[in-house]
Amino acid sequence: MNAPDVFLANEVSGTLPDVQSRADRREIAIQKVGVRDVRHPVRLRGSDGQTQHSIGTFQMTVALPPEVKGTHMSRFIEVLEASDEALDATTLGKLLDTMLARLDATSGAITVQATYFRRKVAPVSGVASLLDYGVTLHAERDHAQRVLRQTVDVPVTSLCPCSRDISDYGAHNQRSMITIGAELRGDLTLDEQIAFAEHAASCQLWGLLKRPDEKYVTEYAYDHPKFVEDLVRDVAVALRGESRVAAYTVASENFESIHNHSAWAWLEGRNP
Amino acid sequence: MNAPDVFLANEVSGTLPDVQSRADRREIAIQKVGVRDVRHPVRLRGSDGQTQHSIGTFQMTVALPPEVKGTHMSRFIEVLEASDEALDATTLGKLLDTMLARLDATSGAITVQATYFRRKVAPVSGVASLLDYGVTLHAERDHAQRVLRQTVDVPVTSLCPCSRDISDYGAHNQRSMITIGAELRGDLTLDEQIAFAEHAASCQLWGLLKRPDEKYVTEYAYDHPKFVEDLVRDVAVALRGESRVAAYTVASENFESIHNHSAWAWLEGRNP
Amino acid sequence: MNAPDVFLANEVSGTLPDVQSRADRREIAIQKVGVRDVRHPVRLRGSDGQTQHSIGTFQMTVALPPEVKGTHMSRFIEVLEASDEALDATTLGKLLDTMLARLDATSGAITVQATYFRRKVAPVSGVASLLDYGVTLHAERDHAQRVLRQTVDVPVTSLCPCSRDISDYGAHNQRSMITIGAELRGDLTLDEQIAFAEHAASCQLWGLLKRPDEKYVTEYAYDHPKFVEDLVRDVAVALRGESRVAAYTVASENFESIHNHSAWAWLEGRNP
Amino acid sequence: MNAPDVFLANEVSGTLPDVQSRADRREIAIQKVGVRDVRHPVRLRGSDGQTQHSIGTFQMTVALPPEVKGTHMSRFIEVLEASDEALDATTLGKLLDTMLARLDATSGAITVQATYFRRKVAPVSGVASLLDYGVTLHAERDHAQRVLRQTVDVPVTSLCPCSRDISDYGAHNQRSMITIGAELRGDLTLDEQIAFAEHAASCQLWGLLKRPDEKYVTEYAYDHPKFVEDLVRDVAVALRGESRVAAYTVASENFESIHNHSAWAWLEGRNP
Repeated sequence: MNAPDVFLANEVSGTLPDVQSRADRREIAIQKVGVRDVRHPVRLRGSDGQTQHSIGTFQMTVALPPEVKGTHMSRFIEVLEASDEALDATTLGKLLDTMLARLDATSGAITVQATYFRRKVAPVSGVASLLDYGVTLHAERDHAQRVLRQTVDVPVTSLCPCSRDISDYGAHNQRSMITIGAELRGDLTLDEQIAFAEHAASCQLWGLLKRPDEKYVTEYAYDHPKFVEDLVRDVAVALRGESRVAAYTVASENFESIHNHSAWAWLEGRNP
Repeated sequence: MNAPDVFLANEVSGTLPDVQSRADRREIAIQKVGVRDVRHPVRLRGSDGQTQHSIGTFQMTVALPPEVKGTHMSRFIEVLEASDEALDATTLGKLLDTMLARLDATSGAITVQATYFRRKVAPVSGVASLLDYGVTLHAERDHAQRVLRQTVDVPVTSLCPCSRDISDYGAHNQRSMITIGAELRGDLTLDEQIAFAEHAASCQLWGLLKRPDEKYVTEYAYDHPKFVEDLVRDVAVALRGESRVAAYTVASENFESIHNHSAWAWLEGRNP
Repeated sequence: MNAPDVFLANEVSGTLPDVQSRADRREIAIQKVGVRDVRHPVRLRGSDGQTQHSIGTFQMTVALPPEVKGTHMSRFIEVLEASDEALDATTLGKLLDTMLARLDATSGAITVQATYFRRKVAPVSGVASLLDYGVTLHAERDHAQRVLRQTVDVPVTSLCPCSRDISDYGAHNQRSMITIGAELRGDLTLDEQIAFAEHAASCQLWGLLKRPDEKYVTEYAYDHPKFVEDLVRDVAVALRGESRVAAYTVASENFESIHNHSAWAWLEGRNP
Repeated sequence: MNAPDVFLANEVSGTLPDVQSRADRREIAIQKVGVRDVRHPVRLRGSDGQTQHSIGTFQMTVALPPEVKGTHMSRFIEVLEASDEALDATTLGKLLDTMLARLDATSGAITVQATYFRRKVAPVSGVASLLDYGVTLHAERDHAQRVLRQTVDVPVTSLCPCSRDISDYGAHNQRSMITIGAELRGDLTLDEQIAFAEHAASCQLWGLLKRPDEKYVTEYAYDHPKFVEDLVRDVAVALRGESRVAAYTVASENFESIHNHSAWAWLEGRNP
């Protein structure tokens, strides 16, 4: 993570007025100021230690004390440009330290969203295909205090237990998005975190299913009916015993097949 | 539709240079130029002749001949501000005429998207609730030639015939969005156009369903399995004989419950 | 707010199994469960006491104790269907009470987003036109404790002081979105809350500007350059002395005209 | 592009009913049916012959004759999974041929959208940074007839000539998105196509600008004022003489800094 040519460029600016560095008399601190919606190529670290290419959308902010007029926006991009490490929660924490040093700040945060792929094998035919997940890595520091949060969006099937029980045949089911946010205190791979959601679902998804697979997932979902409440609770049951996770949020949005709105549940918990 | 105070304001501008009216030498016509993403309150005309309040998002454009440097953007908003008629395809055509006159143009178009509600009665319990639909009205004129197009986005349930046939129990189903675009040559109400989609679905949707209704829709969908191809074909069968529709497009996007992508079909047809 | 015919329909359900009411043994509370992305017509109360029609997108949730298996999703929609009062923070609080009673819950929340229009008069020509704002009303209750929050998204112009000071002519400027979230302890109209943002901007926006107006807003913005930090601080200065606001968040996103990303600032404060 | 293990999996399906292959009696052809919103890693071919990693969002469709009940959705994903070539318009055309063969179809299309990055050097300081562009590659075949279309979305600055001319100082400017769609009959790199838009703008964008750069781009934009009409016409002037482009569309959306809506222009042309 070095880019002297980038940092040197600041000298060039020396002869122009530096408006941002002037004093501010309004006596109002700004908790977060910086850049957002910055797209930048990233490599995500997968479970096997290998990395995969993705595209990150970054938000990078620092806290600004009352007496400082403005932050230096270009330095956020400099820090991003100078970085070349594969991203996981730990390396994002290091990038945050670099950013805080560069911005002369004691508190700040970086959030990056990206798409992550896993190669999955269909349950009967064994054909392989990719499935895409949303991933959000977040690192923040308030002076010495540091938080690393890893969030995954996992698309699954949910099948309604009520519909199944009251109907002579069939049961309404739909795609759901389970979102697990984990405040980390140990290494938890993206695949492990995704697995919590897939195990709690009526059925997990695959990109490619042949007919025997389709029969399997149809019957599997029917055999594992879940309310939106069950989805988040079953994830929470698994996270409750997970020592690498300090705290968690679990949400599920069910894009109801019988309505034009969603059913939604959200819970949070903290491990001792 | 009159707003003399608005139009008079042009005189005020007379002393400032009118850059847009200068000549252009690049010899390039612009087929569409104007404003887009303009939000404005509208009233939509429902089937019963009554109107309902909604919020339209407008795109308004004219064709610009090669020799004219620029259009007068503010006049589009003036035309919109001066309008107070309830919207349907016919009145949108009148608004288009007003706009073309005001912009000194012979060709142009207005497209407006809005949300439309219908009060529906649940199939067993009889409870009433609203369901929301997307509506797009489009009027365009190329000199004397005029097209009025009315499009509805209708959320429905689709249930997979393959999944049903190969599975011992259950069948995957999901929310689908059926979109019907109709080039009109007669009055076709929004409700009539929506009905084409709802009749072609595995089951229609309601905002509010009690348990006996949920049993009904679950079993009804199981009894009416449809591929995405069936959805668009069954709508087309109905539109094929519809004298008020000169031409049509029918699409369906099925937000698959067993994948993280959609199945999609699209067809077009023209009546003699 | 009464709809006996809707509520009566529950009796009809009596003969089918009520899966949601069964006991749950996982010992996990769910802080929020309900419906989201529900579109429903609303009337918003404007500053003049009059109401305007809009379309709300609702999220309605209750807290579910560990021992209850599921909430009754259809009741949220019943409550919405039974409501016919114009919405402001106060009446949303009443709707929340009705919802909690209907769902047998002691804690819960309703959030509704809608578009709000104000008729504005252009600064020189005096022509009138509508401008659209995003509004979010939020009411939540945790047993006896209640919070009402009113949020407005206000589009404005921002002009960069640094660009102006270092350039021989011109200054980059762009559309910005200022978002003010106010926890209310008194009546604060939407218009008053919007005014805080418009006064803090380099210039406010209008839907319709004639040439003399365009000259005015161009020069006005040049005369009032603001960093993204200035925007949020100047709003905070005004809110700091506002007795009707218990606490506030202020954010501004500047869609930079010289970059393909945004500058962004966010602060929060609490009045004594 | 081979994946025998994937294709072999079809044999496994042989014992289950193949509902999609049954005959259809509605006599309605479907012009497009397949999958959409499929995310898949891709490599885009850059100007230097090197490739860069991105994430594609695919739509893959075939035309279905009236007598066939349904297409085989899983085969689209198989074709995508079996592909490993870097993508440009030419290789997408080859992927289309593979898809049509696999689906037993004579007509069909593939569209893929992705983000493309270029490393750019700031105009004064010389600091380097990435800028992101939207890219859409589209290949379609109707029996023997083939079309390859390459589209780029290029963010730029536009500065209003009217505002500049009528104001004593300053000029409103904003981010604009110029979209160029090119039907190719020769190799046109993404960088060449992007350059058409950047040259036509009031000023191009960079991810990272130091103060001397900011001065440069501010003054450059002021010296190159352009209406939305100028943006699309100046791109068209350049494309008019471009032998590798059979036909083109050019659009620009200006996210006006003085309004809450966009100015928009669109034109199309065909080279002899």
